[in-house]
Amino acid sequence: MVRVAPASEVPTAELSIDSAVHLHVEDLLARYLAGRRGELPDLARTFAQAVDALSDFALRGGKRLRPTFAWWGWRAAGGEPDGPRAHAVLHAISALELIQTCALVHDDIMDASELRRGRPTVHVRFTEAHRAGAWHGDADRFGTAAAILLGDLALAWADDMFESAELTAGMRASAREPWQAMRAEMFAGQYLDVLAQAEGDESEERALGVARLKTAAYTVERPLHLGVALAGAGPGTVEAVKTFGTDIGVAFQLRDDLLGMFGDTEVTGKPAGDDLREGKRTLLMALGLSYAGRAGRHADADVLRGALGDPGLRPDTLARVRALLADLGAVDELERRIETLTTTGLAALDAAGLAEPGVTRLRDLAIAATRRDR
Amino acid sequence: MVRVAPASEVPTAELSIDSAVHLHVEDLLARYLAGRRGELPDLARTFAQAVDALSDFALRGGKRLRPTFAWWGWRAAGGEPDGPRAHAVLHAISALELIQTCALVHDDIMDASELRRGRPTVHVRFTEAHRAGAWHGDADRFGTAAAILLGDLALAWADDMFESAELTAGMRASAREPWQAMRAEMFAGQYLDVLAQAEGDESEERALGVARLKTAAYTVERPLHLGVALAGAGPGTVEAVKTFGTDIGVAFQLRDDLLGMFGDTEVTGKPAGDDLREGKRTLLMALGLSYAGRAGRHADADVLRGALGDPGLRPDTLARVRALLADLGAVDELERRIETLTTTGLAALDAAGLAEPGVTRLRDLAIAATRRDR
Repeated sequence: MVRVAPASEVPTAELSIDSAVHLHVEDLLARYLAGRRGELPDLARTFAQAVDALSDFALRGGKRLRPTFAWWGWRAAGGEPDGPRAHAVLHAISALELIQTCALVHDDIMDASELRRGRPTVHVRFTEAHRAGAWHGDADRFGTAAAILLGDLALAWADDMFESAELTAGMRASAREPWQAMRAEMFAGQYLDVLAQAEGDESEERALGVARLKTAAYTVERPLHLGVALAGAGPGTVEAVKTFGTDIGVAFQLRDDLLGMFGDTEVTGKPAGDDLREGKRTLLMALGLSYAGRAGRHADADVLRGALGDPGLRPDTLARVRALLADLGAVDELERRIETLTTTGLAALDAAGLAEPGVTRLRDLAIAATRRDR
Repeated sequence: MVRVAPASEVPTAELSIDSAVHLHVEDLLARYLAGRRGELPDLARTFAQAVDALSDFALRGGKRLRPTFAWWGWRAAGGEPDGPRAHAVLHAISALELIQTCALVHDDIMDASELRRGRPTVHVRFTEAHRAGAWHGDADRFGTAAAILLGDLALAWADDMFESAELTAGMRASAREPWQAMRAEMFAGQYLDVLAQAEGDESEERALGVARLKTAAYTVERPLHLGVALAGAGPGTVEAVKTFGTDIGVAFQLRDDLLGMFGDTEVTGKPAGDDLREGKRTLLMALGLSYAGRAGRHADADVLRGALGDPGLRPDTLARVRALLADLGAVDELERRIETLTTTGLAALDAAGLAEPGVTRLRDLAIAATRRDR
C-alpha cells in the first residue's frame, strides 16, 4: 500500500485525495461518527458512550481497502480528482468502512474472537465492563448483545452516510446495483463460510465460493464496480473491472490463506494457524485433502482433518500440517493459481481502456494485495 | 386493529390501500423478498435457502403496526389514497417491517428466546438444523451466527427497499430525518433495555427512557413522522404528530408492561410473567419497588427484587408479585398514566388540524394500542 505522511504532520485537507485516499476516508468517517453521536437524544446518553467504543474500533486502524478500490475505480473511469463531485463520491465510498465495521464486529462474535488488531474485540470490551461492574446476568451474553446492536448501528449508518452524499440522481441510480449486491454478497459469503465449517465441507468448490463472495465480490469487485458506476461507466467497462476485481479478489483471499497458515504473527497480527484452529475451509486445505486422498495418503489426510477446527492445536501439529501442505503440492498449486489470477486480472484491467493514473494505481493495489510479502 | 377479509378471499390488489394497509404491506414485502432472493448469485444457493427462513419469519405474522402508523400519517397530512405517489409511499414504508424483522431476529438472540409467535425463533431453527445434521462445532454458535447474518441482511434490505421506492427528490429529503433517527433510536432503546437489566437499574427514569426510545420513538412517533414528512407536512404538523406519537407510544408500552405481567397467555402469545423472568426493568416494577421502599415495606421490595430476572420463577411467586404490585398501587398508577398519556396524545392529534379519514384512523389505532383488552 502507498503510504504518505501521517495526519499529524500534514493536515489531511491539504493533501490531494489521490495522494492519501485512506486519510481522507478516516477524516470523513471520524466527522460522520461524531456528527451522528451528537444527534442522539439526551435520553440515549449511555448509548452514546457505547457508540464511542464503536467509533474507536472503526477509526483505530485498517487499510481502508474498499474505499481505496472504489476511489481508483472512480478515477480510472474518468472521475475528477477534486471538486464537489469528487468530494461527494469520497463521502459515499467512505461508507464502505461502516459496512466493514459491522462485518468485523459481528464476525468477532461469530468466531468468538478475543482480539482484533491487538486489542480486545467490541463484544469482549462490553463483557469486561459487565464483569468489572459485577452486573446482573451473564457477562458474555451482555457483551454479545451490545456488539450485535453496535454492529447493527454501523450497518444502518453505512446506508445513512451513503445516502447523505451529495450525488446526482443519475449517480445514485448507477450506484444502486453494486451497493445493494455488495452487502447481500458479503452476508452470503459469511454464511457460506460458517456453513462450510459446520458441514465439514472439504470441496474445492465451496472454498472457492466463499473466496468469491466474501472476499472477491465484497472487497474488490463491488467497490470497484461502485466507483466506475459513479463515474458513469458503460456496461463494457463494468464487466472488465468486475473480471479484474474477481480475479484479484480471489488471488487476495488465496494469499490470505497462505499467510494465515505460514505467515509471521508479527506481520499478520494474528496467531499463526488461527484459520486452522477455527476450522476455516480454505482452498489450501481443500487442495491438501484432495491431493492426499488422490495419492492414497490417508494417514496424512487424517492429520489435516484432525487439525482442522482443533481449538487446542499444538505447535508441532501446526508444523506437521505446514510440511504436509507443502509436500502434497497444495502450496505450489496455490502459488500457481495466485499467479494465474493476477495475470488474467491485470490483463482485463489493461484491456478496459481506463484512464491514468487510475490504471497504474489499480495495478499497484492488485500487486500489493496478492504478493508474498504483503 | 381493523381486520378485513383474508387475502385468500379477496385479492389484495382489488382492495383499496385504506381498507387493508397491512395486507398491501405483506404483499409488497413478499414480492420484494422473492425478488431479492432471485438476484442472489448461483454461488449463494445455500444462502438463498437460509433467506427462505428469514422470509418465512418476516411474512408469518405481526400487526404491521409501523407501516400502518406511517400510512395514516401520510393520509392525515394530505397524502393521496391511491395513484403512483401513494404506491411509492406504500413501498417505502413497507420497508419498516424489514427493520422490525432485524430487530426481532436479533432481539431473540439477545434474550435467548426459543419461541416467537408460537414457533421456533430464527436462531433456534438453525441450531436445530445443526443438531439434526450432527454437524461440526457448537450448534448454538452456528444458530447464533446464522441469525446474526440474516438479521443484518434484513436491515440492509430495509434500506434497499426504502431507497428503491419511486419517491421524488423532495420526498426523499423530507424522509431523511425520521428514517435515520428511527433506526438509531431503536438500537439506543434496545441497548438501554439490556443495560438497565445488567445494571439492575430500578429508576423510573430509566424505565421511561427505554419506553420512549424502544417503543414510542421507534414504533409510533418516527413512523408517523415519516408518513407526514413524505406528505410534505410543515414543522407545526410534525411537532404535533410527534407529541401524539410519543404519548401514545409510551402508553402502548405501559399497557404492554401490564399485559406482560397480568395478561392471558392465550391472548398475548407469551408465557405469563416472561418480562419478569427475563429481568425487564419496566415502569411497573420501578413503581412497585419505589412505593414499597417509600412505605418501608422492605420484605415486599425483596420479593419483587428476588423475582426480577429469576429464570426459575414459580407460579406462586408470580402470583405474589402480581398481588403486591396491585396492593402497592403500582397498577393503578400505571392505569392513570396510560389514561393521561392517551388523553394528551389525542388532544395533540385533534389540535394538529389533520385530514380525515386519517385523524379518525389514528385515533382508532391509538385507542386500540392502549386499551385493556388489546
